[in-house]
Amino acid sequence: MGDHPLAAGALVCPAPLPAIDRVQLGHGSGGKLSAALLRDRFLPSLGNPALRQMGDAAVVPVGPAEIAISTDTFVVQPLEFPGGNIGSLAVHGTLNDVAMMGARPRYLTAGFVLEEGLPFDLLDRVIGAMARSAESAGVPLVAGDTKVVERGKADGLYVNTTGVGLLEAGFRPAPDRATPGDAVLVSGPIGRHGMAIMAAREGLAFEAEILSDSACLVPLVELLRDAVGSEVHVLRDPTRGGVASALNEIAAASGVGIELDEPAIPIPEAVIAACEMLGLDPLYVANEGVLVAMVPGALAGQALAALRSHPLGSGAAVVGRVVSGHPGLVSLATAIGGSRIVDLLPGDQLPRIC
Amino acid sequence: MGDHPLAAGALVCPAPLPAIDRVQLGHGSGGKLSAALLRDRFLPSLGNPALRQMGDAAVVPVGPAEIAISTDTFVVQPLEFPGGNIGSLAVHGTLNDVAMMGARPRYLTAGFVLEEGLPFDLLDRVIGAMARSAESAGVPLVAGDTKVVERGKADGLYVNTTGVGLLEAGFRPAPDRATPGDAVLVSGPIGRHGMAIMAAREGLAFEAEILSDSACLVPLVELLRDAVGSEVHVLRDPTRGGVASALNEIAAASGVGIELDEPAIPIPEAVIAACEMLGLDPLYVANEGVLVAMVPGALAGQALAALRSHPLGSGAAVVGRVVSGHPGLVSLATAIGGSRIVDLLPGDQLPRIC
Repeated sequence: MGDHPLAAGALVCPAPLPAIDRVQLGHGSGGKLSAALLRDRFLPSLGNPALRQMGDAAVVPVGPAEIAISTDTFVVQPLEFPGGNIGSLAVHGTLNDVAMMGARPRYLTAGFVLEEGLPFDLLDRVIGAMARSAESAGVPLVAGDTKVVERGKADGLYVNTTGVGLLEAGFRPAPDRATPGDAVLVSGPIGRHGMAIMAAREGLAFEAEILSDSACLVPLVELLRDAVGSEVHVLRDPTRGGVASALNEIAAASGVGIELDEPAIPIPEAVIAACEMLGLDPLYVANEGVLVAMVPGALAGQALAALRSHPLGSGAAVVGRVVSGHPGLVSLATAIGGSRIVDLLPGDQLPRIC
Repeated sequence: MGDHPLAAGALVCPAPLPAIDRVQLGHGSGGKLSAALLRDRFLPSLGNPALRQMGDAAVVPVGPAEIAISTDTFVVQPLEFPGGNIGSLAVHGTLNDVAMMGARPRYLTAGFVLEEGLPFDLLDRVIGAMARSAESAGVPLVAGDTKVVERGKADGLYVNTTGVGLLEAGFRPAPDRATPGDAVLVSGPIGRHGMAIMAAREGLAFEAEILSDSACLVPLVELLRDAVGSEVHVLRDPTRGGVASALNEIAAASGVGIELDEPAIPIPEAVIAACEMLGLDPLYVANEGVLVAMVPGALAGQALAALRSHPLGSGAAVVGRVVSGHPGLVSLATAIGGSRIVDLLPGDQLPRIC
């Protein structure tokens, strides 16, 4: 002890640098700090042969196929919430968008905007969650980019993910394929992601903690593909704007009406209670691990059984039907025998939800 | 005149809304305002059949090929600068990254983070520039996403672009293929993008205005492919960190040395003067419309002639060579007969350049 020059308080030149534990502007420079950020924080979790090519773009094979491409930028606040963080959300969200087209996700990219001062331990948790989510889905992150902006300019971090999936003939769900006679299914209870974010953001303590449902929906899509195949007319993940907005978009794209049965819609008690307290409608609250499917009424039982065979779909339900009347409109038959139109909202119930 | 109720100051209920001329938080909601933003601002410029599918992901064909994928987020300040804006830069930057792998860019996606209060006229200029750049390159933007964050949280806007290109056998430039005996070429004068941004940001008036070189490099890559084919060992666009950082990365990836001849490097007088004034080294200043190519020395003349046959390459030059000595290092033979090592910088000369 004491024989090290620093221990004796000796002058050293150059002065020792304090350990760096947070993002600095120089981390966005393309220089040594950028290289260190990539080497120390990103590659240990996310590394794979395609990403380690370190070229300007990843080179990856595709078959003689069509591909589906989806891009989504995530600006959720707070960055961490019960049930996930912006990293897992960003992977699930884009994988789900690719899967909703009937494609099998194959490749992901990630583009980060990091705020100067972002603690590395938070960044590491986000990257770790991305890595676990991507690995669990079997989809490598093959290209990435990192930019750094000054303090106050990014709320910690934003991240864009873009996904590429491969399509095969015979399975082409699309928002314009809803057909009168189709049953409308949801794969599980709705409203959890939005209310989990709301609780985390506002520091609200509901009676029961609400966890985000953020999850990769690919396994459910595979089960539906096996059970119903080309008869899956529509798949959609009702994220921003919730089930109500997703159904409105489908009704408009397909030129059909949609009728929902309110008592059939699975909504957790905790979500109902929280929504009542805040004056929100669960139909408009974002989901990040629920899909809406439309299949011919005669196949609804098969589709429901397929969904329920997976833990993620154990709460699946038939919640309504596609009709030829009132094209473009979504209506709700209420528990007390009434009926109301479920319209698109002009703006946000809850901003920065994803 | 005077017969309109408003002109007479009559009360109207509901009160008329003022015309919306800027981004509001609700534009990120996934509701009606989001749909209006997409319909009124994005689709008129950027619409194409794939984007108008409006599914969760775009479905596009690829041949039986490998694909190259690249992603890049743009946070440049200011958003508009002499020679371009963040929109044209974001398209050129990603197309160029795909092209540097030898792939022909085929599809682009764009993910926006918009700041509440961003004026629509500025957004329209950015989108217009993206549309013109993408159209001129013949590459459609097939998927997009828009998020809105509160005032002060995004410096106007950030945009991520991700590009997919198709690769063919026989043309595979890569950063690890530099070979002793290769000539090092640049396609034009260097240092313009970084100095144009610097001048615009700091309100500096240099003697001559410096325009960003932001441009799509695909035509130059096609010319090199025709002239030299598989003998194009390396292509790289020296953006963040400039020519010096790009060459350091290539030297490290290939395990070779690189020797530059200072007098051969084309640098505009205005860039030299501005760099001297600010104490910057043009070798580290970002370019957005210049490529570095490495080809066997015997083919340097053909490669140079190919580049010079296009206006974008009229200032092309052979600036150095790849050697087996000092692997991983870049050296510069100066005009006065000396020699120095051109190292990676630890951080930024100029932050937020792209």
